[in-house]
Amino acid sequence: MKKYVYMFSEGKASMRNLLGGKGANLCEMTRIGLSVPYGFVVSTQACNEYYAQGKVMPEGLEQQIVKAMKKVEAKTHKKLGGYRNPLLLSIRSGARVSMPGMMDTVLNLGMNDSVAQGMEKATGNKRLAYDSYRRLIQMYADVVKGLDIHDFEDELSKLKATKQVKDDLDLNGDDFEQLVGTYKKLYKKLTKEEFPQNPMEQVIQAIQAVFRSWNNERAIVYRRMNDIPSVWGTAVNVQMMVFGNYSENSGTGVAFTRNPATGEKKVYGEYLMNAQGEDVVSGVRTPKQVLELKEQNPEIFAKFMESCEKLENRYLDMQELEFTFEDNHFYVLQTRNGKRTAQAAFKIAMDLVKEKKITKKQAVLMIDPKSLDSLLHPTFDPKELQEKQPIATGLPASPGAGVGHIALNYATAKKWSDEGEKVILVKNETSTEDVESMHIVEGVLTATGGMTSHAAVVARGIGTPCVSGCNTLLVNTLDGTVSFGDVVLTEGDTISIDGTTGCVYKGAIGKKDAEIAGDFATIMSWAERYARIGVRANADTPKDVKRSLELGAEGIGLCRTEHMFFEEKRIEAIRAMILATTKEEREKAINQLLPMQQKDFVEMLRACQGKPLTIRFIDPPLHEFLPKDQKDIEKLAISLGKDVKDLQKSIAELKEFNPMMGYRGCRLAVVMPELLIMQTTAIIKAGIKVLKEEIPVQIEMMLPLIGEIREMRYLKSIIKTTADQLIEEAKSPLQYAIGTMIEVPRACMIADQLAVEADFYSFGTNDLTQMTYGYSRDDIGKFLPSYFENRILSFDPFVRVDEFGVGELMRQTIQKTNKVKKHFKYGVCGEQGADPKSVEFFDKIGLTYVSCSPYRVPIAKLASAQSGIKRGYQKR
Amino acid sequence: MKKYVYMFSEGKASMRNLLGGKGANLCEMTRIGLSVPYGFVVSTQACNEYYAQGKVMPEGLEQQIVKAMKKVEAKTHKKLGGYRNPLLLSIRSGARVSMPGMMDTVLNLGMNDSVAQGMEKATGNKRLAYDSYRRLIQMYADVVKGLDIHDFEDELSKLKATKQVKDDLDLNGDDFEQLVGTYKKLYKKLTKEEFPQNPMEQVIQAIQAVFRSWNNERAIVYRRMNDIPSVWGTAVNVQMMVFGNYSENSGTGVAFTRNPATGEKKVYGEYLMNAQGEDVVSGVRTPKQVLELKEQNPEIFAKFMESCEKLENRYLDMQELEFTFEDNHFYVLQTRNGKRTAQAAFKIAMDLVKEKKITKKQAVLMIDPKSLDSLLHPTFDPKELQEKQPIATGLPASPGAGVGHIALNYATAKKWSDEGEKVILVKNETSTEDVESMHIVEGVLTATGGMTSHAAVVARGIGTPCVSGCNTLLVNTLDGTVSFGDVVLTEGDTISIDGTTGCVYKGAIGKKDAEIAGDFATIMSWAERYARIGVRANADTPKDVKRSLELGAEGIGLCRTEHMFFEEKRIEAIRAMILATTKEEREKAINQLLPMQQKDFVEMLRACQGKPLTIRFIDPPLHEFLPKDQKDIEKLAISLGKDVKDLQKSIAELKEFNPMMGYRGCRLAVVMPELLIMQTTAIIKAGIKVLKEEIPVQIEMMLPLIGEIREMRYLKSIIKTTADQLIEEAKSPLQYAIGTMIEVPRACMIADQLAVEADFYSFGTNDLTQMTYGYSRDDIGKFLPSYFENRILSFDPFVRVDEFGVGELMRQTIQKTNKVKKHFKYGVCGEQGADPKSVEFFDKIGLTYVSCSPYRVPIAKLASAQSGIKRGYQKR
Repeated sequence: MKKYVYMFSEGKASMRNLLGGKGANLCEMTRIGLSVPYGFVVSTQACNEYYAQGKVMPEGLEQQIVKAMKKVEAKTHKKLGGYRNPLLLSIRSGARVSMPGMMDTVLNLGMNDSVAQGMEKATGNKRLAYDSYRRLIQMYADVVKGLDIHDFEDELSKLKATKQVKDDLDLNGDDFEQLVGTYKKLYKKLTKEEFPQNPMEQVIQAIQAVFRSWNNERAIVYRRMNDIPSVWGTAVNVQMMVFGNYSENSGTGVAFTRNPATGEKKVYGEYLMNAQGEDVVSGVRTPKQVLELKEQNPEIFAKFMESCEKLENRYLDMQELEFTFEDNHFYVLQTRNGKRTAQAAFKIAMDLVKEKKITKKQAVLMIDPKSLDSLLHPTFDPKELQEKQPIATGLPASPGAGVGHIALNYATAKKWSDEGEKVILVKNETSTEDVESMHIVEGVLTATGGMTSHAAVVARGIGTPCVSGCNTLLVNTLDGTVSFGDVVLTEGDTISIDGTTGCVYKGAIGKKDAEIAGDFATIMSWAERYARIGVRANADTPKDVKRSLELGAEGIGLCRTEHMFFEEKRIEAIRAMILATTKEEREKAINQLLPMQQKDFVEMLRACQGKPLTIRFIDPPLHEFLPKDQKDIEKLAISLGKDVKDLQKSIAELKEFNPMMGYRGCRLAVVMPELLIMQTTAIIKAGIKVLKEEIPVQIEMMLPLIGEIREMRYLKSIIKTTADQLIEEAKSPLQYAIGTMIEVPRACMIADQLAVEADFYSFGTNDLTQMTYGYSRDDIGKFLPSYFENRILSFDPFVRVDEFGVGELMRQTIQKTNKVKKHFKYGVCGEQGADPKSVEFFDKIGLTYVSCSPYRVPIAKLASAQSGIKRGYQKR
Repeated sequence: MKKYVYMFSEGKASMRNLLGGKGANLCEMTRIGLSVPYGFVVSTQACNEYYAQGKVMPEGLEQQIVKAMKKVEAKTHKKLGGYRNPLLLSIRSGARVSMPGMMDTVLNLGMNDSVAQGMEKATGNKRLAYDSYRRLIQMYADVVKGLDIHDFEDELSKLKATKQVKDDLDLNGDDFEQLVGTYKKLYKKLTKEEFPQNPMEQVIQAIQAVFRSWNNERAIVYRRMNDIPSVWGTAVNVQMMVFGNYSENSGTGVAFTRNPATGEKKVYGEYLMNAQGEDVVSGVRTPKQVLELKEQNPEIFAKFMESCEKLENRYLDMQELEFTFEDNHFYVLQTRNGKRTAQAAFKIAMDLVKEKKITKKQAVLMIDPKSLDSLLHPTFDPKELQEKQPIATGLPASPGAGVGHIALNYATAKKWSDEGEKVILVKNETSTEDVESMHIVEGVLTATGGMTSHAAVVARGIGTPCVSGCNTLLVNTLDGTVSFGDVVLTEGDTISIDGTTGCVYKGAIGKKDAEIAGDFATIMSWAERYARIGVRANADTPKDVKRSLELGAEGIGLCRTEHMFFEEKRIEAIRAMILATTKEEREKAINQLLPMQQKDFVEMLRACQGKPLTIRFIDPPLHEFLPKDQKDIEKLAISLGKDVKDLQKSIAELKEFNPMMGYRGCRLAVVMPELLIMQTTAIIKAGIKVLKEEIPVQIEMMLPLIGEIREMRYLKSIIKTTADQLIEEAKSPLQYAIGTMIEVPRACMIADQLAVEADFYSFGTNDLTQMTYGYSRDDIGKFLPSYFENRILSFDPFVRVDEFGVGELMRQTIQKTNKVKKHFKYGVCGEQGADPKSVEFFDKIGLTYVSCSPYRVPIAKLASAQSGIKRGYQKR
């Protein structure tokens, strides 16, 4: 028979996958001599089999639980359902990684009518007995039976009203006995069953309920956000209850071994006397600072401090522990690596190195790269901020400071943003449709939605500041106004939002860029030695280039030339080019663009200061450059001197059924080689000029969407002919490389052919993912939720690389290319470039560099170092 | 130095790739002792290098030509530019395969003022001398200089008018001398140059002109249509002129060694006395039947017949030869395998077997599978057709002849068809909504759309004749008329359309039905033994199933359930399902569909008579089922009892940016498992019922667009649970298989995982090609022409499988699957299933069967047999 149940004395920390993080820790704490209430763990395997068999307990599990229970009874000299010495139990979830608050817990199991009576007799504490009992009924009804907890709380409130008291503490044993009676009746009314008096039945039911809670909605959402595979399952920890509310010499608390906000080496946390753990968490009573325990109960405090030290020495990291003392007996209930701010993370890692507890490598490994986000965003100038009063406050949903004109929908946001204006999108709530907007706006403000709302999740993903759940905000789409209480603003007015604090301000506030200094800088400099895979940035402006290099980028991995086209003067020329009906018209428009593009590249190359600049030729479908609403079309018709109807027809003709797979990328260059020649000319002339200024230049030109070798040859020959002639004419020593994006699966298949022509590859993982899965990124909102719900996908493949599909195509590309050229340069430009798990994969398959948005460069660098350390890499 | 030039005596038939078909034949004919005018071949390699170097003659070529010319002069005792014994030359293109009329030819090269004088003196035939000269000027101006030939023809007409004669033959030597003077002036006026008097310059220029003609527009189009790679290039044949217009004992002709229309073993062709070859082809004079030559000149006829026999014995196929006799000397100018009708192809192959010239295998190999198209569809009575002039011409999008009343929409088509009338649907463009119409009409005519447009694909699939892209067609829905230029017809008028030629006729033309009989049937039965890869059909109706089996299909490889939904009653239910806002509404709609679907499957399974029926679950994006124009939406709102605005909103919400990669395929089933359950129920209940009728049943259920193993597992478990319960309840011995389409590249990458769950795969090459290339089939029109023009693509990858990209993915799929399961079933359903080159590839990589539209089954079967023969396969 399979072993599903492990006594705490049987397990250890390394059994985390099987026993869950909490379970393995309980075992480990037992092993290192901490005082842990006795118990056992039901393994994650049991949970997975429970699901595999359609929510049925695997065979043999129940017998193993019964057997383990006997051992607990023997060890504790208590008895389940016993009248004199009842064994009460807590049952808690425990996944491989902590998912705080996401799953369910039941306390006081084993309590029933007889046990309550016995307990009253044994302790003389009737209140404890019946309070424990009523808590059990309430939690059991909620967790096991899925009843509405408010129905029970209402009864408690009624009772307090009858008794004319405000606090639970003012109720006595008799009151709770009465409440137990009421609860039992309510339970029966709602379930048509008596509340189970058999303690073993309670235990078995509660264990299954915890299994089920692995798949409740909030757990699924949490897993999705944190890239936790749903196949891991949860373990269940069954443990003797100890009562923080046993007596006045009892209490309970939650504490960190260091300060999780600042990292300071000083225990930090809260406790409550005469209370159970949930009282601390729920916030019903106001707890005391853990340091006060020193005066209130020095003996217990000493044991607490001793436990903290033992724990840190064992886990070599800041611990978050829950503890309880029952009648002056101190117990550690659980421990885990504590969540911390990014700032604290660096301080703690640094201190641990100084304390010689960990090595520099371990320090680098200790920082969660994703947490850097909060350190890397601009903040408001503190001086200016001091003079400002927020007009509203919401939830700090995505860090960073944003300033811009209020726009109430995507169309407006897009229009203004295309015109070079900064925009804050303000909505009652956001939907999938707003994802596009979030890429182009300075910030997002919503009236509803929490920290895990759609808006918040997406905004954090792309680094756009977001304040959500701003309760006083009212958006009036009809008259184009937004109000915050009495303050009424109009669409177009400027506001500032602080995604780190949740504050909203009227008008513009100056921003300060983040800087890399102190512990952050030190540890990042350590990281440098272990990173094999390089980090570049995606930047389309000289300002972004500068910022990227400051943040440690080794070059620019993607400069999207089309982003340069959206400026007002240029968009006119590009539109004229697209809508040209004769070759002459088109050439005229293209010639207008040439000097502008050339100026762009001069500035970009100067900013690069000799670091590589990878320039991608124009890529998007042409209709993206064209106006959509009637008024704009009429305006354009006048400026182009064309008939409105003809223009509408031309625009309509450019509409496509599936633009993502249509007339875009290098296909534009095949049809309009003039465009490719113009861009090449602009790049090469810029290179010649900057090189003359004695600034070194590394130009890498990149063709998007290549899928066929003859396409590559044809376009390369156009580029080469153009470039070589200009270089020869100028007698310049300028050199350049020509590479291709790898974005369509066919390019992967013919990589050995392409490698003959190309100097480098850059994987466009966004498009490659779209085509490999056949998922249109803009349309997946319709089915992706069902995919997560049914555990078909466990992460979003656009955020993290899909190793089996897209990753396999990448692997094959490299394999095929290796046969043709050694020392080939492989990059990735796409959102995945700064996803730590993806970076690790890219490192493994041998990519040369990743390229991500400037603000995420340090994240990618840290991820690269961590991957390097795991793979045993060290720079010489 | 590279050898570019080959004397006829140096080459042979096997050198076709280097010397072109015509050149190799001239060499071969010389080799087997036929009387061929002396000359040499400039190789295809020379042509390719000419292009590679940017239309420049490769180094050394000119010297080699001069040297070869000396040899010709020596052999013929004639001299280029000679006054007494001038050598005149023809220069002709000659690609690896024949591309009749697509490229250029220049005759009479070597003629100039002095040669003309000398020739007049030597032959006493002034007319011949100056007629030859004026012909040269005219052709040279056209081919080498690209001048408008009409300008020259106008001068000829003027001269005839002045002389008051009607026929060229009535002009004498003086007249032509005068014409030469006029032509030379005209030439100078148009080119600002004198007509070149240097014969060698004429030759060199003409050779280059022929090289260039490889890339003229009509040659490019022809190659694209015939899958001829543009990299092959053309050879150029330089040959002594012989004059069919030398004397009254001279003549020229074109003949087939058998009748190319019927296949009858009887020489067939035409000749003209005292004429040059082009006179026969151009149709200026009416030629005589070649058999008449027997009486007119028995000696020459005997030599002709002797040549025919020699040729057939050598080439073992019907030959098309050009011959000339000059003053009683007989010459064969060229020969090739003659083009023939499908009917003739079968008769000739059969006769050659009977004559023991070829084996049965060779007979099977001799038939071009694509040519069968014309045998498998009804055709117009050729006699009636002779008397008709088309009123318009479009693209031959789906072969066959259709006659009926013009209907401008489905409703009218349906009404008239229900009344027993035959209908031709005429529209500007078709949409998915017209699928239903296509089943009931005799033909479809559209103004827009190409050969691969939606209308064309569907029409071919169901064997409905279709002419698409008819540019002159204008549909005026408002007043119910259609116009073709000046011809205006009214809805209800009768037209005839020929989907094989693209012609549209006013009024009715009699039709002839196709049947598989006679030689066709015999050779197809021989083919059966050599075909390894099986052939199934794509069929959505019992009628199509029946037709498929009659045409030899081994089963149904694709039944698209959604096509069943377009019928009037069903579309209502499916719309109600899609637009349901509650689960109840949706289930109600789905339950309405169940009995209808079940009935469909009962009928399909009965028609299959135990042959496998592969049913694909619903696949297309839902908005394809929804109405588009306002009126229909209003109607729908009433029938669904919904608010028009709400409905519009719901419809708008289903709109997608890239529907091809959006909410479709098995994604529908993940979001709406009810739909999958309904379809499974309908299929299984139908199976149980038909099996009870003692008709054997082979059900293969197929999930579209699978890309992830957990997706497959999830949906398979829903299907299995549903199916097994029904089977158990009915105590039926029914069995079924569950497979998946392989349509997204990711499915190929994880084929080893999928194979664990799937019973079979069916490659959806349309979608797989779309995603592998990133080509939206509906949008490639914008760039594909440039791709063909620039020789980036040499064939349409939707028509013929792309071996390097899509094919490689397929190969890997099979490789990975083989590791998990042997004897796995692999199919292809898509247009490529009947493309002979694709079938050969599919055979090579080991697919089990291809599935194509019913009418193309024999094509696929023949292609399969030919592939089998080439691969040495033979059934035991």
